[in-house]
Amino acid sequence: MADVAESERRILVAVDEGEESMHALSWCLKNVVSQNSKDTLILLYAKPPRAVYTALDGTGYLFSSDILAAMEKYGADVAACVLEKAKKMCKDLQQDAKVEARVENGDPRDVICQMAEQLGADVLVMGSHGYGLIKRAFLGSVSNHCAQNVKCPVLIVKKPKTNAGSK
Amino acid sequence: MADVAESERRILVAVDEGEESMHALSWCLKNVVSQNSKDTLILLYAKPPRAVYTALDGTGYLFSSDILAAMEKYGADVAACVLEKAKKMCKDLQQDAKVEARVENGDPRDVICQMAEQLGADVLVMGSHGYGLIKRAFLGSVSNHCAQNVKCPVLIVKKPKTNAGSK
Repeated sequence: MADVAESERRILVAVDEGEESMHALSWCLKNVVSQNSKDTLILLYAKPPRAVYTALDGTGYLFSSDILAAMEKYGADVAACVLEKAKKMCKDLQQDAKVEARVENGDPRDVICQMAEQLGADVLVMGSHGYGLIKRAFLGSVSNHCAQNVKCPVLIVKKPKTNAGSK
Repeated sequence: MADVAESERRILVAVDEGEESMHALSWCLKNVVSQNSKDTLILLYAKPPRAVYTALDGTGYLFSSDILAAMEKYGADVAACVLEKAKKMCKDLQQDAKVEARVENGDPRDVICQMAEQLGADVLVMGSHGYGLIKRAFLGSVSNHCAQNVKCPVLIVKKPKTNAGSK
């Protein structure tokens, strides 16, 4: 059995705009990363190729290159903002943990699986990316896909319903 | 956010005959349960209702009640054996952790989801129960089902391929 020293793990956390992935990161920092550990947290933001999907709008007109550039810029800003927020959370909850941040372009399902493999992650942490019943039937949940295709252990953390006080 | 003190978590681990669930338990003991913690590990074995499914064999003949009783007895023996092995692993890897063991009858998918809820688990740990592509298409993977339906965080641990030495 390939033992992993608890203190030198590479923990890959997939983050996105949603509150759920921040909750997953927070849960991981409190429950998986141990104090004074040498764990490395790798924050991964997968930037979906929006420009490709939306190059044609509903009416069939092509967006101008200006608009596409603006959308690309917007996507980069969102990525930076999400990663800033995530890094701050790491600092607040586990001062000593090493933190790396990455942005990768592509379908989150592919990006997360590839990176888990490539970076030799010891565990992958992510929100459940539920999408609701109907959308899931078409898209498939990102977390389902990753749980099936990633070789390392996968920790899926759902955002608890905010029923004031109830667990 | 409902914070859970790291030292008082209820960790539900679904175990079965497969080596994969034992690997999941071992990973959890090394990576999630912390030394000197007050974590409680709850080992859950779901006993599938074999007797019901196999009351008619392929030829349409009913099994005699003797055979059914023997099968029932066999199921109980397997459950006891699996839980013994799991408890021993807990003792070996985390001497201080409190350990409880439960056997529940029913489809593992339902049993695990119900118990996670009922026991107020802070995290559910399980193997991936892959089944292979064809069987999965019909049965659905137990871990997929649980990841979708359980409210608490779910940690899915796959058994690494035994390619001598490679990770």
